[in-house]
Amino acid sequence: MIVVMKRGVSEQAIQRIAQRVEQLGLKAHIIYGTERTVIAAVGDKRNHERETLESFEEVEKVVPILAPYKVASKETKPEPTIIKVLDLVLGGGNVGVIAGPCSVESEQQILESAHKVKAAGAKGLRGGAFKPRTSPYAFQGMKEEGLKLLAAAREATGLAIVTEVMTPHHVELVAKYADILQIGARNMQNYHLLQAVGEIRKPVLLKRGPSATMEEFLLAAEYILDQGNQEVILCERGIRTFETHTRFTLPLATVPYLRERTHLPIVVDPSHGTGIASLVAPMCAASVAAGADGLIVEVHPDPQKAVSDGAQSLTPDAFVFAMEQSRKVAHALGMTM
Amino acid sequence: MIVVMKRGVSEQAIQRIAQRVEQLGLKAHIIYGTERTVIAAVGDKRNHERETLESFEEVEKVVPILAPYKVASKETKPEPTIIKVLDLVLGGGNVGVIAGPCSVESEQQILESAHKVKAAGAKGLRGGAFKPRTSPYAFQGMKEEGLKLLAAAREATGLAIVTEVMTPHHVELVAKYADILQIGARNMQNYHLLQAVGEIRKPVLLKRGPSATMEEFLLAAEYILDQGNQEVILCERGIRTFETHTRFTLPLATVPYLRERTHLPIVVDPSHGTGIASLVAPMCAASVAAGADGLIVEVHPDPQKAVSDGAQSLTPDAFVFAMEQSRKVAHALGMTM
Amino acid sequence: MIVVMKRGVSEQAIQRIAQRVEQLGLKAHIIYGTERTVIAAVGDKRNHERETLESFEEVEKVVPILAPYKVASKETKPEPTIIKVLDLVLGGGNVGVIAGPCSVESEQQILESAHKVKAAGAKGLRGGAFKPRTSPYAFQGMKEEGLKLLAAAREATGLAIVTEVMTPHHVELVAKYADILQIGARNMQNYHLLQAVGEIRKPVLLKRGPSATMEEFLLAAEYILDQGNQEVILCERGIRTFETHTRFTLPLATVPYLRERTHLPIVVDPSHGTGIASLVAPMCAASVAAGADGLIVEVHPDPQKAVSDGAQSLTPDAFVFAMEQSRKVAHALGMTM
Amino acid sequence: MIVVMKRGVSEQAIQRIAQRVEQLGLKAHIIYGTERTVIAAVGDKRNHERETLESFEEVEKVVPILAPYKVASKETKPEPTIIKVLDLVLGGGNVGVIAGPCSVESEQQILESAHKVKAAGAKGLRGGAFKPRTSPYAFQGMKEEGLKLLAAAREATGLAIVTEVMTPHHVELVAKYADILQIGARNMQNYHLLQAVGEIRKPVLLKRGPSATMEEFLLAAEYILDQGNQEVILCERGIRTFETHTRFTLPLATVPYLRERTHLPIVVDPSHGTGIASLVAPMCAASVAAGADGLIVEVHPDPQKAVSDGAQSLTPDAFVFAMEQSRKVAHALGMTM
Repeated sequence: MIVVMKRGVSEQAIQRIAQRVEQLGLKAHIIYGTERTVIAAVGDKRNHERETLESFEEVEKVVPILAPYKVASKETKPEPTIIKVLDLVLGGGNVGVIAGPCSVESEQQILESAHKVKAAGAKGLRGGAFKPRTSPYAFQGMKEEGLKLLAAAREATGLAIVTEVMTPHHVELVAKYADILQIGARNMQNYHLLQAVGEIRKPVLLKRGPSATMEEFLLAAEYILDQGNQEVILCERGIRTFETHTRFTLPLATVPYLRERTHLPIVVDPSHGTGIASLVAPMCAASVAAGADGLIVEVHPDPQKAVSDGAQSLTPDAFVFAMEQSRKVAHALGMTM
Repeated sequence: MIVVMKRGVSEQAIQRIAQRVEQLGLKAHIIYGTERTVIAAVGDKRNHERETLESFEEVEKVVPILAPYKVASKETKPEPTIIKVLDLVLGGGNVGVIAGPCSVESEQQILESAHKVKAAGAKGLRGGAFKPRTSPYAFQGMKEEGLKLLAAAREATGLAIVTEVMTPHHVELVAKYADILQIGARNMQNYHLLQAVGEIRKPVLLKRGPSATMEEFLLAAEYILDQGNQEVILCERGIRTFETHTRFTLPLATVPYLRERTHLPIVVDPSHGTGIASLVAPMCAASVAAGADGLIVEVHPDPQKAVSDGAQSLTPDAFVFAMEQSRKVAHALGMTM
Repeated sequence: MIVVMKRGVSEQAIQRIAQRVEQLGLKAHIIYGTERTVIAAVGDKRNHERETLESFEEVEKVVPILAPYKVASKETKPEPTIIKVLDLVLGGGNVGVIAGPCSVESEQQILESAHKVKAAGAKGLRGGAFKPRTSPYAFQGMKEEGLKLLAAAREATGLAIVTEVMTPHHVELVAKYADILQIGARNMQNYHLLQAVGEIRKPVLLKRGPSATMEEFLLAAEYILDQGNQEVILCERGIRTFETHTRFTLPLATVPYLRERTHLPIVVDPSHGTGIASLVAPMCAASVAAGADGLIVEVHPDPQKAVSDGAQSLTPDAFVFAMEQSRKVAHALGMTM
Repeated sequence: MIVVMKRGVSEQAIQRIAQRVEQLGLKAHIIYGTERTVIAAVGDKRNHERETLESFEEVEKVVPILAPYKVASKETKPEPTIIKVLDLVLGGGNVGVIAGPCSVESEQQILESAHKVKAAGAKGLRGGAFKPRTSPYAFQGMKEEGLKLLAAAREATGLAIVTEVMTPHHVELVAKYADILQIGARNMQNYHLLQAVGEIRKPVLLKRGPSATMEEFLLAAEYILDQGNQEVILCERGIRTFETHTRFTLPLATVPYLRERTHLPIVVDPSHGTGIASLVAPMCAASVAAGADGLIVEVHPDPQKAVSDGAQSLTPDAFVFAMEQSRKVAHALGMTM
């Protein structure tokens, strides 16, 4: 950490802060500048003491130097983590695709979805059984019945099942049926839930919260990793900005940025990221070009009858087109898909 | 809802959408404009079908007319909800103040905090026993031991205890000790938790999520109200914007805006809203001037020794000043405090 | 426009607003709903009267139906506008590339830059002679001397010159040397400047302001088009959001979104959009995959000696790589580049 | 500046950067940490070389220590700047109020406005003669004719005239009639315009751009101050965030934050900051409580007939109420108004 002192503070104050730095188990280097004095606090403390030092009246600000996450960091594990479940492979130069409806609605709907997305090249099936909905009056999902239908769809197609878990006491139940547990954007900082999925041994797809910084996102992954579950998939799904022409703003520079810092695979969700079906195909292709390890896409056999997210769901035909475009880009850049 | 058709769509397409509107139990009024046709869908459906209609290719957009929340709305209950717990009164022209440290750290710390904030005029004591922390490596709170210390502080001072609950299976435990249960900003859309606190009969202080819209905030309250718990306190604590000079951006226009729409009391948290101790006093006064029913403020007997949030915690003396300024404003505007 | 009345307003108030709508030259259709009355105001008025209607106390909100821009709209001109200057072609299935240093610094620097970017496949040369700088103490550009060096670089290489004009009374001067005039992001709503470049007959590259909505962006283009200059190039260069890990947030969904609404060519600037050299190549490829008609990239023969924007400038070698990746994507998707 | 090196860089690279730092006229202190090496660059260079150092591949980031503005800084001039024009006083414990319509529309409208706002206690009259409008098809102001009407209103009432100037070649004209020149939010970084108003000797009211940081805002003021005009008034008028329930988000913590850093007076515009007339009065009071030196408020004798900004304009009666509330707060906190 770098502790920046306020202008004109006394030597006594400087020494007092330096002493405090040393008490925290760090080494203090005082640098007297022309207008400001700064104290470099050296040692591997990952900034936990930042707030303490910022509370001193004579301190202007404290600048962290080290990233606060460790296990998620490429510095800890330089080689990429590749996640394989059934035929779905995320990472290591392969683009894996997960597709399916927003919600599981019926046996016919989920089976038809599964067959259609498989035919187009998807290796994973998404579908919500427990649905977080902004309004308490909206459809909340088919719950365990939905999980069973997902498992049946896996039986029928061999697709890996990705579905959301919303609360710690459902983790065991969802893990019984699903291949990959999804943590939704609203729950990215639901720490008890992160710890609960950290305790199981199935991959977790962690969606970025709509106002999460890169540090907060990687620290959420760290909560899961810290419990011993090493299979975390990071999912960029758009952030909340002043833009209203799309549902969220999809910031694809996240993909190469994270790539430089973490070994975890990175997946993009252009359906939530835009909220508009006609924008999904170009953003799938763009995600692959940006270096994504996978895509997660909403596809519904009949979007106009979808109980949720109809506006952003692709028809099976539109999904075929999105896959073709993305595959062209992947192959052109030397990736398999 | 108003369904805006794309330019140049056929009469057949218009009729098809109108038919679909009627199937949804709404009445369709078609208005042929000079450049666009719109269909007004009349009926009390609170926009749940919006997505369905937006998924039609011929539809450009769907504009909701009715607010999606009901029980939280002033239209449902025009008179203000006043919440009284021990000596703390929020709403009805009184400004109630809740103050205390970020975390409960020790018996001495919490008791000293309680006596100091009471002396300055606070009627509620805040303090975290279960702490949501961005990093898994940071102090996570004293847990039940912390709750017991809070209860002891209530015994000693008569202050109402406000403390956070992070996960559904802790609700019963926290409710055993606390007078008001806090839902943190990170959990504003943790729906299982909202439902769990909706089932108890103690007031809930619901913090706005840092990227939540007013609709999402009121719908989160609606989740609690819908379970039968009528005592929800809305808390503005700052939003995430491009501003980095403060920890969050504190948008005080929220206070009069919510006042026009809901009967629930509205409290402001200038400590998290700014993250900088020297800005807390002016923002307390500004919150009162904007019409807030209450304040929640971080105060620590010795901020430099705080285990969390030291930079934004007031010293007891600084809190006395903030209270004095706020009280002057409250009295000038005809409120009690 | 749709005028949404407040709840419970009198029939008299409704009639008064309806009358006002008719006075504005629109036709009023009153729709009595179960909870709200709305008035559909029909006619081609492009929402200029929106504010008037919103000022009535009984009106809750006014929802515009028509987009406020006309000449920029695909509805006015369905076929794409293709801009050709020397060998640079933007639009019509070709990806044109403009590259070069942030600022013109010396004859050697700009000539070396021009030769290097041409060798890699660029057809346009960028370089600032008049530089808008956040600080008054920073280098403000070589001014006319810089323009002359750019013209010399065109002589030497045949590249089309793209350079910024900052104020109306420089338009004539800059137009004398440049092939395309750039309006910087800070000046997107400098209306006198937009009108001034609207009066000349050279293409204008209009950068999106960092907090501009799509409507504001297209209306800024409309200011230029309205003066008779039909050659406007839209440039997405990133928006200001809460993200701090990149200089701006680059929202590529803008590309297909604009494509659906306007005939103007769309170019992306991944250098300003990210601010980090190592992210530029993947974001170039992603921009092309999203459907961009062109790229504008900062390249400097020796970024460490650049007087501005060194951190986001590519070395000539890094630019060669970015071009190769982008070209692969363009060709895979059937575009020329 | 603090230069943070990437992990694992060679001693040679460290020495190379240190050497470069010294070449820039700064002194380099190398601090070898446990995981990272940092170089403290000491000297008064105000960070202009930041970009140069960031362009080195071995450098992870450069952290500025000194604020980049000087003349605007309280460190340069600790005593507050008080601006007095006719009876309008901004700063020094007095809250000055500027009010009037968005646009000058007619002699009767501006005279009636002037008399009404004066009666309520305003000392300045606002009104646009040159209007920056998002759409080229909207009313652009009465231009010089409007300036003459403003001057006539000053004759009649003694109010100080505040009006916007949009382009450098109008500065002389506007300065002929106005007492204070306003730079609108869209032009906050129109540097030629800032320099032009820096050359005259009348106060300038500088509005914050909707996505400007505090540094950018103060550097824009610095452009004016640097030309010798010492009378700059900073105006917070709301920022662009994800919030859509208000026109902009009004972040009042800006007021005490700027107070700690600059000697310039700070004024708040709650009309543009909220865009909704019913929120203006509480936000006026809140602005005063936050410590503002002044308010600028839109008031129209008949908002429903306003040619622009009707929705956010107060009626004269509503303005009387806003003034009463604000005055109560000012007096309670020991300010005059």
